[in-house]
Formats: sequence, structure tokens, C-alpha cells
Amino acid sequence: MSTWEPRDPGFEQRIRESFVEQTIMATLGAELTRVEPGNIEVRVPFRSDLSQQHGFLHAGVLTTVMDSACGYAALSLMSPEAGVLAIEFKANFLRPAKGNIVARGTVLKPGRTINVCRADTFVENEGREILVATMLGSITTVVGREGIVG
Amino acid sequence: MSTWEPRDPGFEQRIRESFVEQTIMATLGAELTRVEPGNIEVRVPFRSDLSQQHGFLHAGVLTTVMDSACGYAALSLMSPEAGVLAIEFKANFLRPAKGNIVARGTVLKPGRTINVCRADTFVENEGREILVATMLGSITTVVGREGIVG
Amino acid sequence: MSTWEPRDPGFEQRIRESFVEQTIMATLGAELTRVEPGNIEVRVPFRSDLSQQHGFLHAGVLTTVMDSACGYAALSLMSPEAGVLAIEFKANFLRPAKGNIVARGTVLKPGRTINVCRADTFVENEGREILVATMLGSITTVVGREGIVG
Amino acid sequence: MSTWEPRDPGFEQRIRESFVEQTIMATLGAELTRVEPGNIEVRVPFRSDLSQQHGFLHAGVLTTVMDSACGYAALSLMSPEAGVLAIEFKANFLRPAKGNIVARGTVLKPGRTINVCRADTFVENEGREILVATMLGSITTVVGREGIVG
Repeated sequence: MSTWEPRDPGFEQRIRESFVEQTIMATLGAELTRVEPGNIEVRVPFRSDLSQQHGFLHAGVLTTVMDSACGYAALSLMSPEAGVLAIEFKANFLRPAKGNIVARGTVLKPGRTINVCRADTFVENEGREILVATMLGSITTVVGREGIVG
Repeated sequence: MSTWEPRDPGFEQRIRESFVEQTIMATLGAELTRVEPGNIEVRVPFRSDLSQQHGFLHAGVLTTVMDSACGYAALSLMSPEAGVLAIEFKANFLRPAKGNIVARGTVLKPGRTINVCRADTFVENEGREILVATMLGSITTVVGREGIVG
Repeated sequence: MSTWEPRDPGFEQRIRESFVEQTIMATLGAELTRVEPGNIEVRVPFRSDLSQQHGFLHAGVLTTVMDSACGYAALSLMSPEAGVLAIEFKANFLRPAKGNIVARGTVLKPGRTINVCRADTFVENEGREILVATMLGSITTVVGREGIVG
Repeated sequence: MSTWEPRDPGFEQRIRESFVEQTIMATLGAELTRVEPGNIEVRVPFRSDLSQQHGFLHAGVLTTVMDSACGYAALSLMSPEAGVLAIEFKANFLRPAKGNIVARGTVLKPGRTINVCRADTFVENEGREILVATMLGSITTVVGREGIVG
């Protein structure tokens, strides 16, 4: 975890409101459990309707929450009028995931237009956290509707 | 689209049965619309509960269906006892996606243990398809439970 | 190969001059063999001092020329004052590469600040081309020195 | 840096010998400066013939040494008869790199056939290290010639 200075003191509320508008989060049962400057935590309790063919959580579910954790980590360091969009990401899946998961996203480098972030996903197993996936990705800063669709 | 010779003539039924066991597909409303050797198509009708904060489909939703399309493209060329797991993937998001999507996965190179696949996602817009995301990833061949958790 | 309309009719000369300034290209013996709007070809004759420990071309050599092919493919569609920098890329290595190689980079989507490109590398073997590596990456448009170091 | 237990007590000599056989390393002027279980450090003194068009080190040069650092990090944990090949990697470039660089590769998860590794590259600037690039990739374990070309 790096330590960053937020530009917008109201970043936490802004992120919590945006998270609610990410409707896929509710669909997956994801909860925003920690909002700090440059660092975001999202949890998903295991559900059997989120799985791949062997009963493990689908790689796409892990990816979805890691992407949101990265995006909000980047957003937490931006000014109030800015928004975020995923440019790209890469994820590696280290172990099959069965159980409640926690994803933590962190900013490696904030930028004017490109923010580089990392996220890890852990399965919680008898009080221990086991790393099951990791992501490296780029988030772009968007300002106004033009930024979003440009 | 490449042309591949399947090793298992029953590959289509095998994949259709496995797709049903991928419970996240039903959760997202994804449908398996084409199963050919080395080529898989998955469609997701737009739903407002699959979105990110601006109302576009969440990048993770596109990723989830591209990953499944890649995995089943790889599986379609394997012998009946084999299974697949995502090792890793990388996706780029070219345009915000709002509308019904179709993802097509294809095998670039099948392998004994590592299969390299590509997928594209298009939004359907007034009869035209607009490329919104693309994926490049690796799928591993697993045989038996040991292969899955090893 | 896609067909693109260049904004700068002098794009080919601009790219050929820039390629000469990419000193690593001469160090690797790389040649710029094709410059078309949105499409670039670079060739590297095999040399034994470019290898990894088994005598194959090092993955980093393939990557270096694919990155340059992507960067110049993006640059070919830009106005004369613009420059390019690699944001990120991902490459898969499909087969060990031993022999002369040809890398082809192409623009998937040009953008104001982010350009998404793809490249493939082939080994030339008795008149046939064998795909050995593929890349998916993002190139950013930079204008002026500030853009480069910002 | 994680701590790993090597299976082969002679891992350091094995890696040093293999590094010499990676002829691209000498071509780039790269030096193997640290060999520990699961952790490898490679340094490249700046040279003007390793640059892109603005005089910065080419992204492909950073990638080449990060890939070698990852590969040898994975190899350091393997038994003596095993070898390594890059399956794929992804790199993000955070800042232009001008100066001597140091790349550090580390194993995130060793595996029977797939090893996930991470690497970072820093520019050395007046006694400080500045992160300029980061990699996330997969290395496969190969045994014998068949493993290499299969």
C-alpha cells in the first residue's frame, strides 16, 4: 500500500455514491469495504451463481471486482469533476477460487490522463488470505461526457 | 476465424453442457450462440444491472464473456476427458459499450498444456457491429481434478 | 490489415527518419520494410547474439520490434507534430523462434490520446511464415516535450 | 521480496551459466547482479544505442531484462534438470527511462508447469530509484528438448 494525498477531501463519499451506480456490483453482491487515498477494497461473499464449470468463482468475477477496485483507487486521487474509465488490464489467475473473496486495488502511478494500478484478490480461508489473482491495468481520467465517449 | 479439426466429434454437446454449469453465464443473461471447432460466440442482451457508473456495460462483464468464449474455443479442440482453466488474459477497451453485445473467441494456437486465444466483443448497433473490446489470453488444459487444483 | 486514411501525407518519411533515431533498431539489426497507413512491417535477420539460453531469439527481441511496429503504425495516422510513447503492451509467445523474423503492427483503434494496436511476429521458414508471437498494446499520442515526460 | 526455499542448492551457478548463454544480455550490456531464491536482479548501464526516438531507453529493452529477471527468478526454484520459457508477459511503462536501470524479478507463485512472476524496473537517479516499468508474466517449466519445442 502506498500513501497518497487526495486532491478532493470528499473523495470517499464521491466513490461510495459512484459504487452504488455501478449496478454490476449489486448484481454480484460486491461490497465496498475500504476507501482510502489510492487504495480500495471490495469484497464478494461466495455465491454459487457466480461460478465457472467446476464450481470455482469465474475468472471474470474476480476481474470485475479488481477492475472496480483499480478504477476507484485511481478516482480517489482525482479532483471532483473527474471520472474514470478502464483502458485495459491484464490478470493472472494463480489458484482456483472458492470462498469469500477480497480484492484490493492500489495506484502504482497516478497521471494526468493515464493511471497505472494494481489489484490482488484473495480467498479468505479460516482466517488466512490466499492470493488467487492479480491484475495490472491502466485507468484513464475523463472529464465531462466528451471524455467518456471520445 | 481459423479452421480447426476437432479431436472429439461430440465437442458441441460437451461445451453446451459445460456452459450451463457456468452459473455466472445465466446470472449475466449470456447465451451460447455458436459452437464451432476453435470458435465460440456468446451473446449478452443489454441489461441495466450490468453497468458501471456511467451506464455502460462494465468492463468486467465484457471480460467475463470473452474469457468464456476463449475457454470454450480452446475446449472445442480437446479430447473428451480434458477441461480448461484461464491462466491469464489481457483486454483492451476501445469504446464504451451500451447495447446488446456479441463476443467471439477463437484459438490462435492450441497446445498440449497452453492454448492461446483471442476474443473480440462487439456492440450491435442498427445492424452494424462495433468493436468495443478485445482480449488476448492463455487457457490451460487440465485433466482430472488434480489438474484443476495443482 | 485495416485501411486507414493518413492525416499527414508525409507520414512515411517522418516514420523512416524516426526509425533511424530509434538506435536500438540498428543495434538489433532491424529494418523497416513497409510503411503504410496504420500498418508497419519490421524485419530482423537472425543473429546469434540476440538469443536466450536455448539459442532461440529472446522474447524481448520479438517484443522490441513488435512495440516499434505498433508505435509507428499509430504514428502513421497522426498529424506531423505528434509523437508516440508505449503505455503498455502484452505479448504471447506461441513457439520458439529461430530464424529471420518479420513483425507486422497494425492499428485496431486510433484515438485522440490512446491508440490500440496489435502486432504479430512470424519466423520465415522455407518460404512459409510461422506465427511465433503476438502483441496487444496501447500507444499514447504525445505533443511536445511536455507530453513525453508528463 | 518473498522468501522461497530452492530445490537445487546449486541454483546460483546454474543461473549464472545460463545468463551467459543468453547472448542478448551481453549485446545489451546487461549484468546479473543478484541471484537469490525466487528473486533476480539485472542491471543495464545506459547506452545511447539502446534508445527509442526521443533518446529514452526503448520499452523493449526494459522488457527484455524484466523477462530475463522473471525467467531466472522462476528457474531459481526449480530442480536442476528443468528449464524455462516465457509464455507471455504484460508490461506498463510509467515514466520515460533515461539512465542506468535495475530490473528486479520475483516469483509470485511457482507451479508445476506455470510460474507467475512480477518484475519492476527502476532508473537510478542521484542515489534514488525511480520506478519506470512493471511486468506481470507467466513462465513455463520445460524439461528436455521436447518441452522446449512442444
